[in-house]
Amino acid sequence: MNFISKLRKRWDSADSLLCVGLDPQIDRIPDALRSKHSPYFEFCKEIVDATHEFVCAFKPQAAYFSAVGAEKELEQLISYIKNIYPDIPVILDAKRGDIGSTAALYAQEAYKRYGADAVTVNPYLGFESIEPYMNYSDKGIVVLCRTSNAGSDWLQKDQADSIPVYQRVAQQVAEWNEAEQFILVTGATYPEELGRVRQIAGDMPLLVPGIGAQGGDIEAVVKSGLNKESTGLIISSSREIL
Amino acid sequence: MNFISKLRKRWDSADSLLCVGLDPQIDRIPDALRSKHSPYFEFCKEIVDATHEFVCAFKPQAAYFSAVGAEKELEQLISYIKNIYPDIPVILDAKRGDIGSTAALYAQEAYKRYGADAVTVNPYLGFESIEPYMNYSDKGIVVLCRTSNAGSDWLQKDQADSIPVYQRVAQQVAEWNEAEQFILVTGATYPEELGRVRQIAGDMPLLVPGIGAQGGDIEAVVKSGLNKESTGLIISSSREIL
Repeated sequence: MNFISKLRKRWDSADSLLCVGLDPQIDRIPDALRSKHSPYFEFCKEIVDATHEFVCAFKPQAAYFSAVGAEKELEQLISYIKNIYPDIPVILDAKRGDIGSTAALYAQEAYKRYGADAVTVNPYLGFESIEPYMNYSDKGIVVLCRTSNAGSDWLQKDQADSIPVYQRVAQQVAEWNEAEQFILVTGATYPEELGRVRQIAGDMPLLVPGIGAQGGDIEAVVKSGLNKESTGLIISSSREIL
Repeated sequence: MNFISKLRKRWDSADSLLCVGLDPQIDRIPDALRSKHSPYFEFCKEIVDATHEFVCAFKPQAAYFSAVGAEKELEQLISYIKNIYPDIPVILDAKRGDIGSTAALYAQEAYKRYGADAVTVNPYLGFESIEPYMNYSDKGIVVLCRTSNAGSDWLQKDQADSIPVYQRVAQQVAEWNEAEQFILVTGATYPEELGRVRQIAGDMPLLVPGIGAQGGDIEAVVKSGLNKESTGLIISSSREIL
């Protein structure tokens, strides 16, 4: 089963659009877990076990592991989810962006080494940075489109552009999406633009960060973002800005 | 000594603008090294020892290590260069791009875990994705601007834009560069645009991939790219497109 089918099935069976982020930081891990051999894994495992019924996906963030040399615990975590909760898609949040054989290695890292069902990628380098991921036909590719932070306006949404960059990304990704592998990241903080992305992208799933602390409003997101099957959204719980 | 000073000193002492990429792939590693305990490290170490006199910088590529779980060998490699050739700056080619505390973790990964002098980053997410790196005042930040591959035109250089995105990136980075931490990536395949970036960026160093197999012409690059001190270029040897 490919990624999008797995996601659709999970939307239905869990009746949920919620994605739980797994962003373990050592100073937030309770003492009892912190002293264990694999504290990042143990902490995330507790979150996974406590929330699995309510989620359409899990989203571990690579930097939280790689900054501290805990890649083995990230491998362990994704392997745990896939073994115990095989119906729940895992999106590796890595935001990789490179081209040619280097992009192919990042795809290998996400899909083969870590076994993720999908990975977040950055569109700045264009087609050569996306194509290597498309060769994994059962996997998902989550492309940054309109991010939730204000400091990206000058690049993603310059008023003088005939078509803002974020809309060009949505159009371009829609063209690449014949095999239904793609998802677009569109921040909850800009519901109008999220609605515009929905128009451009048809029924493509949208990954939506920015609810809560960042000020995104869940009602506005659902109103602008649902597709015609009343799904199509993966709403990220993470406290982080994606 | 901060990164840019280290680089300037090295340009002078080595009388070289050449940067050697370290992109180890197992099928290119000779048998005698492949059977060793740390083949990726050993292979790169031989390249480093053979070329150190002639380079202004080394540039290991993160994906070649992370795709195969060889992060320890990347740590070992950078540590080796810093111990044996302390005058040669190390640019970690990771092209990270995230924001807030996640970007801070990627900065920690590059500068503290790996001990790199500089790291490549992606500008798509804007200021929140760059600021955490600026807190390391002795380190360098290498921002993708005009990449050497053709498939990025629709985003970086759409003809209908009032100011093409790559020029906006150059302007924006020039504004952030008060503390002289920044470098821009501009492909050798577009010498005219490289010249435009040089005009916008003043004396800022430019990292230039795309010479050789990709068709970039060294004379055109030097003609368009040198700064007024007749340096300002880091010309990448890598066979990869950056």
